[in-house]
Amino acid sequence: MPTPDYDPQNIFAKILRGEMPCHKIFEDDVALAFMDIFPRADGHALVIPKTPARGFLDMPPDALGPYMARVQKVAAAVKSGMNADGLTIQQFNESAGGQVVFHLHFHILPRREGVALRPPGAGDKASIEAHAEKIRRAIEAL
Amino acid sequence: MPTPDYDPQNIFAKILRGEMPCHKIFEDDVALAFMDIFPRADGHALVIPKTPARGFLDMPPDALGPYMARVQKVAAAVKSGMNADGLTIQQFNESAGGQVVFHLHFHILPRREGVALRPPGAGDKASIEAHAEKIRRAIEAL
Repeated sequence: MPTPDYDPQNIFAKILRGEMPCHKIFEDDVALAFMDIFPRADGHALVIPKTPARGFLDMPPDALGPYMARVQKVAAAVKSGMNADGLTIQQFNESAGGQVVFHLHFHILPRREGVALRPPGAGDKASIEAHAEKIRRAIEAL
Repeated sequence: MPTPDYDPQNIFAKILRGEMPCHKIFEDDVALAFMDIFPRADGHALVIPKTPARGFLDMPPDALGPYMARVQKVAAAVKSGMNADGLTIQQFNESAGGQVVFHLHFHILPRREGVALRPPGAGDKASIEAHAEKIRRAIEAL
């Protein structure tokens, strides 16, 4: 059952249904992970649950643990695949909280010492698929 | 068992042991939640696991789900107690990722439309306890 405010026409719902493309890096019965197409850091990835939840508070408690295990798995692969020094993890709820697409997602941002995040929209789209491939290989190696 | 890089002298370990004070808002056998003393928004709260994990990747998978359920519970109380329009959730790993205290913690930031986060260190310490009390009452009412 979708949560009350869930709009099944949001872009991530379309990606889940295969109606929109994505640079997929991981998928199982619980979650899907793909590259952010406006990367604020090289290797910027998103992890979404297959549960139709609008935000973090809408995720049913029994589905939250399995979903967060996938967030952790993808985060580990983003860090190792991108050879990062650290990770910044962000999750936005409602417009006031920074949310743009209204399907729950965690941002996984690989970080390097001394390198700031890029402003939203300033990323290099041409290299996204190459970064995706590094992360896919890291997931296989976990 | 602490994770390999866990330093038991970090400030959150001291708070967990009662050696340092905090504005506590929630505690059970899994997690402790308290107010950030450098609030970037009114009601800025932190949720830490009792498991001695340095960062998100160090959390044992079987402990992650119960911990995230507490993060969700506290986030719901922060949103309702502070009457927020949205929530920004952040989690930093290693210095490059923005981490300052090396015990896993999720930041819960209540947000209002049109109000930016304050720069780090710019918060109003005098009102922290009043915000903590609002969130405690919201947790009791969940």
